[in-house]
Amino acid sequence: MPPFGFLHMRAWASLFGQLLRSPRAVCIREVHFHSQFAEAVLTSQLKPQQEKSNFIIKTPKGTRDLSPQQMVVREKILDMVVGCFKRHGAKRLDTPAFELKEMLTEKYGEDSGLIYDLKDQGGELLSLRYDLTVPFARYLAMNKVKKMKRYHVGKVWRRESPTIVQGRYREFCQCDFDIAGQFDPMIPDAECLKIMCEILSGLQLGDFIIKVNDRRILDGMFAVCGVPESKFHAICSSIDKLDKISWKDVRHEIVAKKGLAPEVADRIGDYVQCHGGVSLIEQMFQDPRLSQNKQALDGLGDLRLLFEYLTLFGIAEKISFDLSLARGLDYYTGVIYEAVLLQTPAQAQESFNVGSVAAGGRYDKLVGMFDPKGHKVPCVGLSIGVERIFSIVEQRMKTFGQKIRTTETQVFVATPQKNFIHERLKLIAELWDAGIKAELLYKNNPKLLTQLHYCEDMGIPLVVIIGEQEMKEGIIKLRSVASREEVAIKRENLVAEIQKRLSES
Amino acid sequence: MPPFGFLHMRAWASLFGQLLRSPRAVCIREVHFHSQFAEAVLTSQLKPQQEKSNFIIKTPKGTRDLSPQQMVVREKILDMVVGCFKRHGAKRLDTPAFELKEMLTEKYGEDSGLIYDLKDQGGELLSLRYDLTVPFARYLAMNKVKKMKRYHVGKVWRRESPTIVQGRYREFCQCDFDIAGQFDPMIPDAECLKIMCEILSGLQLGDFIIKVNDRRILDGMFAVCGVPESKFHAICSSIDKLDKISWKDVRHEIVAKKGLAPEVADRIGDYVQCHGGVSLIEQMFQDPRLSQNKQALDGLGDLRLLFEYLTLFGIAEKISFDLSLARGLDYYTGVIYEAVLLQTPAQAQESFNVGSVAAGGRYDKLVGMFDPKGHKVPCVGLSIGVERIFSIVEQRMKTFGQKIRTTETQVFVATPQKNFIHERLKLIAELWDAGIKAELLYKNNPKLLTQLHYCEDMGIPLVVIIGEQEMKEGIIKLRSVASREEVAIKRENLVAEIQKRLSES
Repeated sequence: MPPFGFLHMRAWASLFGQLLRSPRAVCIREVHFHSQFAEAVLTSQLKPQQEKSNFIIKTPKGTRDLSPQQMVVREKILDMVVGCFKRHGAKRLDTPAFELKEMLTEKYGEDSGLIYDLKDQGGELLSLRYDLTVPFARYLAMNKVKKMKRYHVGKVWRRESPTIVQGRYREFCQCDFDIAGQFDPMIPDAECLKIMCEILSGLQLGDFIIKVNDRRILDGMFAVCGVPESKFHAICSSIDKLDKISWKDVRHEIVAKKGLAPEVADRIGDYVQCHGGVSLIEQMFQDPRLSQNKQALDGLGDLRLLFEYLTLFGIAEKISFDLSLARGLDYYTGVIYEAVLLQTPAQAQESFNVGSVAAGGRYDKLVGMFDPKGHKVPCVGLSIGVERIFSIVEQRMKTFGQKIRTTETQVFVATPQKNFIHERLKLIAELWDAGIKAELLYKNNPKLLTQLHYCEDMGIPLVVIIGEQEMKEGIIKLRSVASREEVAIKRENLVAEIQKRLSES
Repeated sequence: MPPFGFLHMRAWASLFGQLLRSPRAVCIREVHFHSQFAEAVLTSQLKPQQEKSNFIIKTPKGTRDLSPQQMVVREKILDMVVGCFKRHGAKRLDTPAFELKEMLTEKYGEDSGLIYDLKDQGGELLSLRYDLTVPFARYLAMNKVKKMKRYHVGKVWRRESPTIVQGRYREFCQCDFDIAGQFDPMIPDAECLKIMCEILSGLQLGDFIIKVNDRRILDGMFAVCGVPESKFHAICSSIDKLDKISWKDVRHEIVAKKGLAPEVADRIGDYVQCHGGVSLIEQMFQDPRLSQNKQALDGLGDLRLLFEYLTLFGIAEKISFDLSLARGLDYYTGVIYEAVLLQTPAQAQESFNVGSVAAGGRYDKLVGMFDPKGHKVPCVGLSIGVERIFSIVEQRMKTFGQKIRTTETQVFVATPQKNFIHERLKLIAELWDAGIKAELLYKNNPKLLTQLHYCEDMGIPLVVIIGEQEMKEGIIKLRSVASREEVAIKRENLVAEIQKRLSES
């Protein structure tokens, strides 16, 4: 895989195809856009409806609008992600934006305070969904579905302190893929890791590694280190911070705040600083303390089998067994994983921090929490951190001055003639009815130069020009915006000629 | 346009292409699906985590999950709608699910009580968006955008009493197209009506008509009938109900509840029972009372120009000038419109009621309400009632027993051999890496018949079969599920052969 840099931009250019445009053309458009219309509006209708001096127009804290430019980037990335989910046979599911409040309780551990509740306006108590996993588990239990491979693309909401530079928002998009059902061990788990590799390689975000661990190994490790069982979840949450803060700080937190004995913390420290490949699994099998713990042995056995499958999938070198990986969420029960982008020294100088871009794991007991009789449906899945990926790509396009077309218009209908709105409207309707993407200016008498500039600025490839003389002769002019070449063609051949040109380009 | 019925189903069949499957095959799949896995789960892990006897698993009132079947239908319909928006040069925009509460106040008139508020958890007071129009206007004002053609597909939330048979939910999807900017009159307005016609014709929902009116004509009508100006909005809301309740009931409401004099109500009644084409516009120009009102004349003049453009677009016969059309929302200022499906007598016997499927209008003052100085940006737009369209299509598919594939899997990897999981995993990774949509069963030793049944049930067209003998000979079997024909091909040619077959089908 090539390193970050210009090579990548070329790869992206090919990915985005003809949507990419030179930065210069776009700058012209932006200026043009504002100057052309600001005047008309500023000089008309200046009667404010009421005094609103301390009225600030904004989106809620931690949220934002997504501009057409951002939407184009998003749609391209989401198409690739969803394409991968479909390649692996997943069906699409959708659930409501909010759930009954009680559905979300006891699912997220320390993060539960970040859930958005709806106001009690009479009726049920509701909360906005915090992720797509709990609604999926609720769906399975509610419909008594015992087996399903589904994907879900949707927004989730968390009342976090937004640190916008890192691409963390209170409203963000998640792309989840999950496999529910009782199957032979580690086959679906290996497929989840394969999917993460396919997506991260396909998006060409640079080199990455996927850290893997198992909740049972963590629990076993806590047990043999002397952590009381009641503190497993709390310690797990602290360990989860090891990718952001140092072991020293985590050690302080679990000793001073969570009341672990210093020697217990040190024993944990010996483990969580280990990471490696298959050989580390074998080493842990031999570990004098860990090898005495049934849970840890179960986890290690599964990881050994998982690595066997990952080798067959050709992705073992992308995976690192990492005893510090904990994952904050309460519901995981087995294998857990998290993909991180690796930064080359050149990038380390950039202020743009990346971190985790995909994560997931096995949660065999979550569906049972919704079932009145506790019937379990084992599940394993992953979530792609598309918001971070969007940020990376947007940042990169900014750095390289790359811009993209935000419309797909193929043909512009223009005229040099005054009072030709009737002819233009009749003609454009014919194009629309033939499925051709077409625009015109909403003016009765636009200047020809204004019309041609609009096409250049918007990257519209073709212009149809009609005038009185041509009308009489039964012809019409077709102009290529790039070459500025104009040809006269028979009026009745117009649609066919446009379709021919578009299919060639 | 052909009437509702089997002809339409054939048109739909061609629209949905190879996704459509025979109803019989699906019935088999459903039975198979449940029986195969229910047993394994029911006999294992039966320990409920806690007593939850009065714990009901459900989605919030008025909301629902969307199944994979529903999602496939939705995506097809949304693709067509968005395709039309792009054909008309629109850019895509997205806004947060919630807005500052104050952004939504004074925008929706009597409907404001239906807004979902978020709980005050410290910080800003927030509400879920009620439509996509107000967030668009807020976006324009906030970013000082004076001109934009955008579309937005997203969920909105309204605390209505859900009458689910009619396809009305508290959470539903809207598809909006709007044109903002100061332009020559009626050109963007005519394009909005053209778009509605293209979408409704393209979706082949049966015959339809688009009712058109103008808020200024309504206001002028209220004025000349003697309605006090302070009651215009309230009377407008009542008139808006004329498609659901009779004039007699509306008359009662505006007299008894809203305090209009009976003779004023009767004068209104004379107008709102009129509808027709261009000739009705001319007739109203001659109306002794209405022709004395400046506002009404402005509205009638615009409608006359609008019909001129609609004739050029070839859609005038789909449009009806209807003085009873009022539209409930406060923000409209000019032309308003609403598309309704026309039911043939045969359908009238079905319990499935349809009504309005698209609507919109001009709102020239909404952006100014957000601007501290009241700067206005004239806007016109439309919203496609996709939820109702989804319901109609789902209902129709149900009636005709039509089912659709919910996955796109092209190839299944099977084996008759025991202990062949390694070979299957290696092979399927090769297919995935070649971009082929492939699945296998997550079992170490599945029966061949089970594997082949799965393909038939899921509509997967091709099966690759690997066994020990074939491995030795360097070949592999490729089976067509439909014809049950099997050919042996060289192992190294497998991917190329599959790609050839898929491109041919």
